[in-house]
Amino acid sequence: MSFFAVIMAGGVGKRFWPRSRRATPKQLLNIAGDESMLRMTVDRLKQITASEQILIVTNSDQEEGIRREIPEIPEANIIIEPEGKNTAPAIGLAAVIVQSRDPDGVMGVFPADHHIGDLTAFKTYIEQGISVARDMMGLVTFGVIPTRPATGYGYIQYHERAKDDEPVFAVKAFAEKPDYQTARMFLKSGDFLWNSGMFVWHVDTIMKSFQDHLPELWDSLENIKGAIGKPVWNSVLTVEWATLRSISIDYGIMEKAQNVYVVKVDFNWNDVGSWDAVHEMHDKDENGNVSQGDVIYHGANNNLVSAQGKIVALVGVNDLVVIDTDDALLIIHRGETERIKEVVDGLEKEKRDSLL
Amino acid sequence: MSFFAVIMAGGVGKRFWPRSRRATPKQLLNIAGDESMLRMTVDRLKQITASEQILIVTNSDQEEGIRREIPEIPEANIIIEPEGKNTAPAIGLAAVIVQSRDPDGVMGVFPADHHIGDLTAFKTYIEQGISVARDMMGLVTFGVIPTRPATGYGYIQYHERAKDDEPVFAVKAFAEKPDYQTARMFLKSGDFLWNSGMFVWHVDTIMKSFQDHLPELWDSLENIKGAIGKPVWNSVLTVEWATLRSISIDYGIMEKAQNVYVVKVDFNWNDVGSWDAVHEMHDKDENGNVSQGDVIYHGANNNLVSAQGKIVALVGVNDLVVIDTDDALLIIHRGETERIKEVVDGLEKEKRDSLL
Repeated sequence: MSFFAVIMAGGVGKRFWPRSRRATPKQLLNIAGDESMLRMTVDRLKQITASEQILIVTNSDQEEGIRREIPEIPEANIIIEPEGKNTAPAIGLAAVIVQSRDPDGVMGVFPADHHIGDLTAFKTYIEQGISVARDMMGLVTFGVIPTRPATGYGYIQYHERAKDDEPVFAVKAFAEKPDYQTARMFLKSGDFLWNSGMFVWHVDTIMKSFQDHLPELWDSLENIKGAIGKPVWNSVLTVEWATLRSISIDYGIMEKAQNVYVVKVDFNWNDVGSWDAVHEMHDKDENGNVSQGDVIYHGANNNLVSAQGKIVALVGVNDLVVIDTDDALLIIHRGETERIKEVVDGLEKEKRDSLL
Repeated sequence: MSFFAVIMAGGVGKRFWPRSRRATPKQLLNIAGDESMLRMTVDRLKQITASEQILIVTNSDQEEGIRREIPEIPEANIIIEPEGKNTAPAIGLAAVIVQSRDPDGVMGVFPADHHIGDLTAFKTYIEQGISVARDMMGLVTFGVIPTRPATGYGYIQYHERAKDDEPVFAVKAFAEKPDYQTARMFLKSGDFLWNSGMFVWHVDTIMKSFQDHLPELWDSLENIKGAIGKPVWNSVLTVEWATLRSISIDYGIMEKAQNVYVVKVDFNWNDVGSWDAVHEMHDKDENGNVSQGDVIYHGANNNLVSAQGKIVALVGVNDLVVIDTDDALLIIHRGETERIKEVVDGLEKEKRDSLL
């Protein structure tokens, strides 16, 4: 039994425009610290497994940037999806590749673009998950103890303890992103955890789950598996992929399966879903400002400023997000950063590709 | 009798940072139109006199930029003040140089950095002023009919008409920048005009005024005049200049002299004193935004954006002034642009000379 870490790095992160672009998506940006989110994700996982057993699922736009950022990972471990089809197909593709390398392998799935504050705790929790995957043939999720009534995360409801002396519980239900009242109830009840989007399971367990709950996808994955290492690989992958429907692993499998467990984790976790989250997770000056770069404030509070190679002066303005790059400058209010999509959609419509 | 136009171009315009810098001050910026304010000032004056009779008073920091911007003016017509001493010494220096070229000359004084909308009317009014200067040996000011209770301008109170068929009046008093209540009263009374900072007089008249009202300055100016065209010019100018006190022409002469007239002018005039004035004087889109460069707005109103070589996106923000340059970005609220001085003063204190 060996452990393979699969990093999901297919997203673009439109909400981080103008820093995020097709070729330099969110996970290649250093928005959560001094290094890129992908680099920090890989470094976290290298505590648990060897570089040779870390796989990255991505798309052709990002391939070059990822290879440059993570040179220590073997070329064959960068898996290129022909097209984004949500998480279930991407995880299935990784699963058959892991299975071809070690039919007794355990695999973990990790978003490339989340922030986790405590490396030691992370290692401990993942290893607890690996035991559950191996000993109990479970589909293991990781649920973060919530600290506020967040409406931006999905939740996992847990019930009885599944393992003595370890924070492992049976899962009762999954909940989509709640409204604020529901989120408050979730927080108060104590039975709900934030769904971190990380999973651990034995390859046999997940493949059996595909067979049971997504049989058409399973058929395709079996065909793809048969082509691994053969000249037909690319054509089989492309043909099969075109037939797949987009579906998330949560909706397609986790919400339906019976053998689902959750490791209840207690660390500083953030999905870094927006510039608002970046403001939230960083240390602030005495006026609540977060600065990346050379910024001066005169009577300006609670702003987030990111700029390079220039001085930025904010005078008498509050609650702004200011993101400056060589070819684009964005100014938006904190709390309204969802509207960045309007800008990006507009640029797409006008075919201003150099800015996308 | 010939007419000399003297352009006062010594100011830096800190309030236009980060576009204005020591070497590229306000008057060298194209903030009021497609060309620099100095270029527009010179072109206005070339309607009235020859390039050879246009003089520019400035300082050594700006000399090179001005020569490049206005190459048609003879080198000897760029007059370098050893040090800024306010308007009375600068005008006196220009007066003795004009006198040395034509003892019967009439000179006009024009700020380099004001906006005047109507070129034809400008020419007419200045020519009316020249007649008054020549025929009545008056100190001629130009007073703009106010259109609102502006608190940022000085005012001229006029009384009886001094010339038939022309809008020339005797001046009763000068008023400093008023408070809002006073400005409303000025507007209502109809007796007050905005002091445009432009003047016309015969060189004999202004030199006699210096002798009467600022005799120490007059002594120095006579010494300086004696050195014109001689090898001692630079040393005499430097030595005399060091002894001068800073004083404005308004305070030192105009408020004390008896033979002061005002030409009542009716044109679109703006001293372009701040980014707020730039917003005010430009055409706006349907949401009140003024853009210099490639700017997109989503639910953003009444902003002024100036940027080059990049796209700027403003989302859901109102009443901002956003000025982007290669090495500095300023974001400030409209109506608070006086506070730009705080930024510049801070940079001076930190000796960040490249940004000044």
